[in-house]
This record gives sequence, C-alpha cells and structure tokens, in this order.
Amino acid sequence: MLLADLPTPSLLLDRRRLVANILRMQARARELGVSLRPHMKTAKAAMVARLAAGENGPITVSTLAEAAYFAKAGFRDITYAVPVAPQKLDRVAALMRDGVDLKIITDNPAVAEVIAAKGAASGVTFRVLIKIDCGLHRAGIAPDAPELLPLAQALTQDASTAAGAELAGVLTHAGHSYHAKSIAEIKRIAEEERLAVLRAAQRLRAAGHACPIVSVGSTPTALHADSLAGVTEMRPGNFVFFDLFQAGVGSCGMEDIAVSVLASVVGHHRGHNHLLIDAGGLALSKDVGANEHAPGSGYGLVCRPADALPIAGLAVYDVHQEHGLVGGPQAAPLDFTQYPPGSRLRVLPNHSCMTAAAYEHYYVVDGDAVVAEWDRVNGW
Amino acid sequence: MLLADLPTPSLLLDRRRLVANILRMQARARELGVSLRPHMKTAKAAMVARLAAGENGPITVSTLAEAAYFAKAGFRDITYAVPVAPQKLDRVAALMRDGVDLKIITDNPAVAEVIAAKGAASGVTFRVLIKIDCGLHRAGIAPDAPELLPLAQALTQDASTAAGAELAGVLTHAGHSYHAKSIAEIKRIAEEERLAVLRAAQRLRAAGHACPIVSVGSTPTALHADSLAGVTEMRPGNFVFFDLFQAGVGSCGMEDIAVSVLASVVGHHRGHNHLLIDAGGLALSKDVGANEHAPGSGYGLVCRPADALPIAGLAVYDVHQEHGLVGGPQAAPLDFTQYPPGSRLRVLPNHSCMTAAAYEHYYVVDGDAVVAEWDRVNGW
Repeated sequence: MLLADLPTPSLLLDRRRLVANILRMQARARELGVSLRPHMKTAKAAMVARLAAGENGPITVSTLAEAAYFAKAGFRDITYAVPVAPQKLDRVAALMRDGVDLKIITDNPAVAEVIAAKGAASGVTFRVLIKIDCGLHRAGIAPDAPELLPLAQALTQDASTAAGAELAGVLTHAGHSYHAKSIAEIKRIAEEERLAVLRAAQRLRAAGHACPIVSVGSTPTALHADSLAGVTEMRPGNFVFFDLFQAGVGSCGMEDIAVSVLASVVGHHRGHNHLLIDAGGLALSKDVGANEHAPGSGYGLVCRPADALPIAGLAVYDVHQEHGLVGGPQAAPLDFTQYPPGSRLRVLPNHSCMTAAAYEHYYVVDGDAVVAEWDRVNGW
Repeated sequence: MLLADLPTPSLLLDRRRLVANILRMQARARELGVSLRPHMKTAKAAMVARLAAGENGPITVSTLAEAAYFAKAGFRDITYAVPVAPQKLDRVAALMRDGVDLKIITDNPAVAEVIAAKGAASGVTFRVLIKIDCGLHRAGIAPDAPELLPLAQALTQDASTAAGAELAGVLTHAGHSYHAKSIAEIKRIAEEERLAVLRAAQRLRAAGHACPIVSVGSTPTALHADSLAGVTEMRPGNFVFFDLFQAGVGSCGMEDIAVSVLASVVGHHRGHNHLLIDAGGLALSKDVGANEHAPGSGYGLVCRPADALPIAGLAVYDVHQEHGLVGGPQAAPLDFTQYPPGSRLRVLPNHSCMTAAAYEHYYVVDGDAVVAEWDRVNGW
C-alpha cells in the first residue's frame, strides 16, 4: 500500500524518524547512567513501547486504560504517573493481581492513608512513589516540605502487619522546561529537577526509607541535562514523535518529527487565498502551543507528502471541526494550480500527544510505502 | 447506577436538558416553516438523532464515518455537509447503493466534473448541493459569482444520457454568527444567510435547474432568525447539547448545557490555590473559544455533580494532558476541605463538539441516576 491509497484524514508515523528518535534517547539514558522508562502517554502504542523499552518495560502511563492495554500486550513494569484517585485503586489492584508491577503516585497524606488501608483490606501491597514539585507547580510537594515524612509514614505505618503499601520512591516532572527560552535555561531546570528529587530522596533515606526509585523526566530536560547523578530513571514521552512545539523549544529539528496528518485538498477559496483541507480541529487538535516558541505555526505546518518537510510559509491558519484552512489573507499568494482538489498534503502537528489522540491507529510509513498499521489506546 | 458509581473522567449527558433543547429547536423549525435537518457532528449518536430527527432522518453529518454509522442505524436521508474529496466518492456510492439518500456538497468546478464522471462510470446518480458562501469565507462561492451556473452545468451536463449527478440544491452555513456581538447582529447575519442562499437558488432556477433544497444552518441563526421564507431546511447541530460558547453568544443559559465531564479531585496544591482533577486537555479538549464572549471560562466551568450549575468563580484555569487545574493564583482562596481527594466535580465544556469527541459513549443521567449508556461514532 502507498501513501496515495490511504483515506484522509489519517495519522502517519514515519518509521525511520521514530527509530532514530528512540535510539537517540536510549543513547542519552546510557550516557547519563539512568534507566529509560518512556512515557507512553504520547504514543499509546504497544509497538512503539516495544521499540523504546523492550517487551516487558519499564514504561510510564497516564491512564489506567493505558495500563490495562499495555498489561494485555505483555508489559509488566509500569508506572502510572498521574496522582491516583482513591476510586481507581480497585482497578490498580486488579492489574497487580494479574502480575503487573504497577506503581502509583500521590502527594496527598489523606490519599496515602486510603492507599495503605485499601491495600491492607484487599491483600495487595501498593507500590507508591511520592510526587515532588520541582518548579512546575502543578502537583507534588516541595522537596523540603514538612509533610514529606508524614506522607511516607502514612504509607508505610502498617508495614509490620499487613503491608497495604510500600514506598517505591520519588518522582518529579519538570514540565516548566517547555516554556524555557534557551537551552541554557533548560539545563538549569534539568539540574533543579535533579536536585529537587534527590533532596527528597535523601530526607526519606535519612528517616529510614529505602526509596529505591528516583525518577525525573520531560523530553527537554532528558535531552539537555548535563548530569543525572543520583537519579535512577527518566521518563520522557514526547521524544518518540516530537512535534512543532519541541522543535520550537530546541529539542529536535523538523526532520525529526515522526507523526503527521495526511489530508486531502477539498476546495479553494481564492478570495481569501486559502486551500481547504479535510483535516480540521478534530484531526489536528486545537492545541496551538507551538506558536509560543515559533509564531506562524498556526494549527500545523504544511508539507509535501513525499518528504514531510514544511513548504515555506504554508500553515493551517484556522480550523473548524472538519475543515482546515491553509494559507490565508496574511500568507503569500497561493499558486492554486499546485494544489488541485484531491491532492494530498501532510501536516506536522503542534503537539503530537494531542493530535494522535484523535486516531485509533497509525499508518506506519517509510517514504511512500505504508509498511504497517499499529493500534493505539485512547480514553480512560 | 448512580453518578457516584461512574469512572472518571467520563462524559455525562443530561436527558432532561437534551430533550428540552431538541423540543425547543423543533418548535423553532415549525414556527419558521422549515424542515429540521440536525447536524450530528456534535452528538454523533444514533439515540440523539432519533430524538431530534426521527428514525429515518433527515440528518446532516460531517464525516463519512458518521454517514456509515447512521446508515447502519437505519437513517436514510443524510447530507454530508463538508466539501467532498474526490477519493471519497467510492464510499459515497457504496452507501447510496445500500439505499441511503446521501447528498454531498461541492463548490469547485473541477470536483463537479469528477463527480459527474465518476457517477456515470459507476452507475450512481450523485445528489449534489452547491455550497454558497454567505459571509463566513471558509468555503463556498458567492451567490452572485459567475461560476455558479457553470458549476451546476458541470454537474448536470450528462443528464440526458447516464446521469452521473444531479443538482439537489444549495447550502450555506453562517458560522460567522458565532462571533456576533449581539442578538441584533445574529439576526442580521441570519437574514444575510437566507438572502444569500435564496439568491443562488433563484439564479439556478432561472437557468432551468429545479434546486429543490435550500439549506441554511447554524445554532445561533436558527434560534434568532426572524424569517426563513424561501428556505426549505435548517441544519443547526450544537443546540442538542449547547456549551459555554453558546451561552456566551446568547443561544442558551447555563441550565441548558446538556453535556459535562465528570471528574475526580486527585490532589490539592495549596501554594498555588488549586485543585487537581483527572480531566485535562484530552478529557476537556483544548478549545478555549468560550473566553471570547465569556472571559473566565478557562477550559470549563466547574459545577457540583448534583445540579451541573457553575460554582461561582470556579473554572479549570489550566490543563495538561491528564491534569485539570481548578481555581488558581488569580481565583479567590479555595476552601480545600470542601473538595477532598476522591470527591467529584462536573465541568461544563467550552465547546461540546470538541469535548465529546474524546469519548466513545455518553452516560445519560437524570439527576443522580445514570439511566442509559449511548454509543457515539468518532474518527473518519
């Protein structure tokens, strides 16, 4: 099957770029002396996880639907890296009974108590990482916060009897690296990320907790950290695909972006100097985050299908639900004869995690050839 | 089953609000003397389509995946209201052979020729509406454009021999009503919408084309038009659910918004005065359009689960993929004891079409009771 045979809109995954991105991050992990536990929230695909982490893991997931999907695909070493809602502990316990080493996270003393009690009551020892805030200020407790030790205590107080929980380690995420203005700033944030989680681990160890896992991760800090001394693992996710946002922040080049949306030209609006394509707000997502670092990215940069490299000056400047508008009144005059209705274009996404979520599967491509179709898991 | 038993995040559909919204629009159509052909791009659910349009239709769809889904559910009168890509004509023909009166649209003479030739070659008479631009400037040709008659001619030139296509009518969409600043402006746009499509129909009829369908539609203009004289049908879609955007533009009140996202509190960040919920950018979508008319809508307004009416001043002010941040540094100080981890909140969406697309089904609720589970179709 060839690119030209595919329905539109559809989600393309460039195999060569994917493999190169994964090899690059695996080399980084080796160089930094840490384990790579890739965050599968971006790809949500067993085939990508196998390339990035092997048959068993370690991997990171963002939903229990992902945990169940990867468990079914044979993965055994999984960290669910979103603070667990107490109601979800039954699903976590069920996956653990099926043989999955599924680790959960929290930053809340009340939840820690519920976890320990629920584990003791149901005969499961939940493995819990404490979430540390290293500057993103989304979730987590500060490394020097007084509640760190009581939180660990709440988890482990029943350890001598029925151990409902154990402290598996500490985890942080330097998501604020996404808004860094320079590589130097990313390096500074990476060092703060490392120091924050190390400080928390040191306090816990000083109080007698083993704290085996010391986990950091974001694609920018994973790529640019000078040292991860003391850290045991990193959890970048977006790197498998990259996107215009990561290109803007300096994580990759255009030639590294592995996912794109294949679209058909369905009309011309000469009065407004735009092409209409059949990839709109649902097919591309309404994430316009890349414009923070790279103004003019619109809802995606438009490429020739064959090379998936941007045509200079051509972006999706507006979207409606099923309509993408390419070019526009602010763009250079379009040569409409170059883009007849029915011709194909390829759109590089602002944010691959969001764009990919609209699709059930990837068409894996190598040049013009469609070499495989890989499933992914959506929903919760 | 009760609300408290549902997993989170999940998509709730309030049955009473849904039915009231549909009855209101059906009354509007009767009052205006036009047929209601609801656009199912919002609900994408057979059960909603049956309530709004009966067992057979007429309905409007935005993708061929919707067309196939509704055909399988028994609907026979369907208009696919996005300009058709030439490659999609085989799928259209297959549905027509299965007995669906599936109408397509175009505004492009080259596509019109392909449609007529493809129909003649495959023994199908495609039923085509010409898309008219009434001021949105997304797609369509101006009602007075010289290419209108040649376009109709390209569709129907083979009518005497093998009729590959026929002109079913004209269609327009006043999507720019979404950016109107007042009800008076919506009324003016509604009248322009009517006059545009009427003018095109008159020109086509004067040239000997029957032009039986004269179709308009957007939720704001359908609700506020003073007259649809000469029009045969309207195609509003969002009205079944409404959302914060429609509330902002004056189409509905908060008490009419029929879909919401049920979420769990998963953490507190006291330093940043926010709750963390398990509905983030994927569960809510990243559409922030409502803020144009209603600043402070953030990524959604937060409600008590029982009544689905906003708690004053409480919005999702930021999202990450699986994290929603409620409250925030700019909001009034939160009383965290009111929202312990594990408690439930309900979020009214900015744009229901985008938010619903992340889910495979609706939990239909009446007060605290979950009374049904309805499927929906996504993808292409």
